[in-house]
Amino acid sequence: MSSPNRLLARRAGIDTYQQPVVYMRSDCDVCRAEGFQSQAQVELIANGRHLFAILHQVSGDWLRNDEIALSEAAWTLMGAVEGEELVVRHPPVLDSLAHLRNKVHGGRLDYAALRALMEDVSRGRLPDIHLASFVTVCAGRGLDLDETVALTRAMVDVGERIDWGTSPVMDKHCIGGLPGNRTTLLVVPIIAACGLVMPKTSSRAITSAAGTADVMETLAPVDLDLAAMRRVVEREGGCIAWGSAMRVSPADDMLIRVERPLGIDSEGLMVASILSKKAAMGSQRVLIDIPVGALAKVRSDEAASQLSRSLVSVGAALGLHVRTVFTDGNQPVGRGVGPALEAMDVMAVLERTADAPSDLRERALLLAGLLLELAGKAAPGTGNALARAVLDDGRALARFIAICEAQGGLRVPPKAAHTHCVTAPAAGVVSGIDTRLVARMAKLAGAPRDPAAGASMHVRVQDRVDRGQPLFTLHAESLGELQYALSFVRSQLPVVRVEAAP
Amino acid sequence: MSSPNRLLARRAGIDTYQQPVVYMRSDCDVCRAEGFQSQAQVELIANGRHLFAILHQVSGDWLRNDEIALSEAAWTLMGAVEGEELVVRHPPVLDSLAHLRNKVHGGRLDYAALRALMEDVSRGRLPDIHLASFVTVCAGRGLDLDETVALTRAMVDVGERIDWGTSPVMDKHCIGGLPGNRTTLLVVPIIAACGLVMPKTSSRAITSAAGTADVMETLAPVDLDLAAMRRVVEREGGCIAWGSAMRVSPADDMLIRVERPLGIDSEGLMVASILSKKAAMGSQRVLIDIPVGALAKVRSDEAASQLSRSLVSVGAALGLHVRTVFTDGNQPVGRGVGPALEAMDVMAVLERTADAPSDLRERALLLAGLLLELAGKAAPGTGNALARAVLDDGRALARFIAICEAQGGLRVPPKAAHTHCVTAPAAGVVSGIDTRLVARMAKLAGAPRDPAAGASMHVRVQDRVDRGQPLFTLHAESLGELQYALSFVRSQLPVVRVEAAP
Repeated sequence: MSSPNRLLARRAGIDTYQQPVVYMRSDCDVCRAEGFQSQAQVELIANGRHLFAILHQVSGDWLRNDEIALSEAAWTLMGAVEGEELVVRHPPVLDSLAHLRNKVHGGRLDYAALRALMEDVSRGRLPDIHLASFVTVCAGRGLDLDETVALTRAMVDVGERIDWGTSPVMDKHCIGGLPGNRTTLLVVPIIAACGLVMPKTSSRAITSAAGTADVMETLAPVDLDLAAMRRVVEREGGCIAWGSAMRVSPADDMLIRVERPLGIDSEGLMVASILSKKAAMGSQRVLIDIPVGALAKVRSDEAASQLSRSLVSVGAALGLHVRTVFTDGNQPVGRGVGPALEAMDVMAVLERTADAPSDLRERALLLAGLLLELAGKAAPGTGNALARAVLDDGRALARFIAICEAQGGLRVPPKAAHTHCVTAPAAGVVSGIDTRLVARMAKLAGAPRDPAAGASMHVRVQDRVDRGQPLFTLHAESLGELQYALSFVRSQLPVVRVEAAP
Repeated sequence: MSSPNRLLARRAGIDTYQQPVVYMRSDCDVCRAEGFQSQAQVELIANGRHLFAILHQVSGDWLRNDEIALSEAAWTLMGAVEGEELVVRHPPVLDSLAHLRNKVHGGRLDYAALRALMEDVSRGRLPDIHLASFVTVCAGRGLDLDETVALTRAMVDVGERIDWGTSPVMDKHCIGGLPGNRTTLLVVPIIAACGLVMPKTSSRAITSAAGTADVMETLAPVDLDLAAMRRVVEREGGCIAWGSAMRVSPADDMLIRVERPLGIDSEGLMVASILSKKAAMGSQRVLIDIPVGALAKVRSDEAASQLSRSLVSVGAALGLHVRTVFTDGNQPVGRGVGPALEAMDVMAVLERTADAPSDLRERALLLAGLLLELAGKAAPGTGNALARAVLDDGRALARFIAICEAQGGLRVPPKAAHTHCVTAPAAGVVSGIDTRLVARMAKLAGAPRDPAAGASMHVRVQDRVDRGQPLFTLHAESLGELQYALSFVRSQLPVVRVEAAP
């Protein structure tokens, strides 16, 4: 059907997160001819490039009648060029929506259905409300083991898959952010120093005060493409890179954009999300750290055990050897919360300084020891000692520095311009630390945007404190942000709970 | 917590449908201080007015650092004034989300939970992804009778409720649009002419070529507020007004905005949607027309029976006397499809012209007769004859004209500038008419935006036709739109299927 539905592309400069949005005048010929309404989905076409986007109609004069403005996500995904002609039309009806409706009404999803769904999800063809519906039905109706395996496989198959040409390829993952839990920066050099291959990709912070990639970035460049990663791994056995450049399990990235604001957890989706990324990244033996705590993502040993069984079974079906370990998720790990402050903790452990946080060190040794056993480098029960030796004799530090140099050069983490210390209002015992409030105050102080911002914790649960003894210090780049974080601390339940000593 | 999170309001002139969106520079103080990201939900406050909105961040220079731009929905809901100071902050966590999650994970929803949910829904506090999640879980887990009753009650209770001060108050409703099914314009004057009260509100087209309000508007003003409606009903016993001005069951309006694009049907939601509007509008005895057909919303007699049982039971719990009737949903009703063309069919039936469409007439008499029996105005089995008498002796026409005059004055429906007749390619029998394609081609021709645009159907299923005999005529205000609708017709499966006669 030939039609005059062409408009000239313009960059709107509006960030709609990952949901592509386009802006058209409600009185333009295309809207009139096609009967488009605001919030309708439209398809853009230009020279074989396609994109599905949500329409927001515009009045007023910032857009001409022959123009279509694209949000940042739409601009990037379309690969649009200023002023080029775009055809705008009604999108075809997607088969995958029938599969979604089938699941809503009690049917089961097989690989073909999930493959079609993940194909459309990864290409951005499903608007947020359909993604929310899919997440809801996965949580509500649940995914059985076969469905979870099929979903994981489908997520892998619609993206790139990396082959490192070696075996075993080691990996680790931590479920649910615990402030300061930066074991990756210690585990990777220990494992690599033992001659194993561990090409680790990590995320930046989304809701936390720092992601592993943010912390590593204060010590070395992390924005590596696959070729750069390969060079680092070939030379040093390991790397700690930002995972976003790789197009592995792209459907997972799209689902996460609605899972977080929706706040609805689906075990099947979580397992598929984690393992699809690992399988697509070419990992073969994976250790998964599950912090368990009242405010953690996993709140009981029973829940952790069930999740663990699912991870191990689905991993096996995908050809991944998965092992899990349950750790304490009730308080921050180490002292620092925020990119640079966490990096300093890591360096203190690697450099074996007298004040290095022992909880971070012990967690890293536990994980590294289990990975060495999982790799067959250490007999069962002996991994921890091997890891300890590699850390204590300086080989881990040397390897970490070598990895940083290979990634583009070791850096010194920045220090914040302003600090403020919060002290105990009375003598007593620290009865609890609210990990969510810790993350929130570190973010209000500027983390992770300002890498030096955040908080350093001076006490741990069960510590006895005197009146006026430092509990934690806020770090910020501006006095305004320091004040802002501080007024948040004062308006909340105590971040660090001190109870009168018995 | 005092903070400098104030920005000056500006109208963005962007229509985001009902989802309120605000635009802020990503580098403005408020985004920096609060750590807002695109797609985050924010709360706006000014002089006791509150609004929850989704944030889209802006770069480029159309917005200043001290400004916040509001989409049309946000502007209207907030009642914002150009240049006024708005406080922007993180919204509080909503209790209703815990209820939603509870239902997702298999719990049941009681009145208190549904009331909290509908309160937040009606106030626009839930973003579209949460609405989509609620719709999905209602469809997937289902709502039992108690939950459906509680939901209906909650929808009524969070909005206005109208009392007409009389009894019985009659009403009718049709489930799922069938092109041309404009019985309301005939039923209301018949019922009112019999001395009953029928204050009918109708919707405009959303996905169809014409809503009842669009059709009525070609004959009389429909944009009445409650006071105007009362005056019309007091004088004439009935009215046919556009329902949108009334704030009845506002939560339902919000849910519909995601139900339609989501395309997921929930019987419980549908029942609550229909009956909450009726109860809030003060209706007492309601006849519900359920067209059944392969392409209709309800596709089988079994489905119609189940829906009917649910409507009657939930209605009874709400104090509504509900009766249902199943009708043929397999082809358009009357000839016209589009506001003015349908209005002409209605006038022909009222004026008893020789070529008045008899199917529309008979459907209206069936419904009017059942309503007269439901009101106790006619003994069982005699309603149809009474309705027929009132139509045939001109009382219905006189009352319809009186209602139009009371609503602001009778109008003559417009005629389209251009028409094109599509004829039978070969002799045969009409074996089917695709009601969805009929609606689509009428919309492409300009309906309902151009009230005169649409289609008039010249044949019905089972008719014998000769080669070249007219099947339907397209009506449009511009040659371009006529061409556009025509090229759609030619690119599709036949709108009217003609099979070789046996």
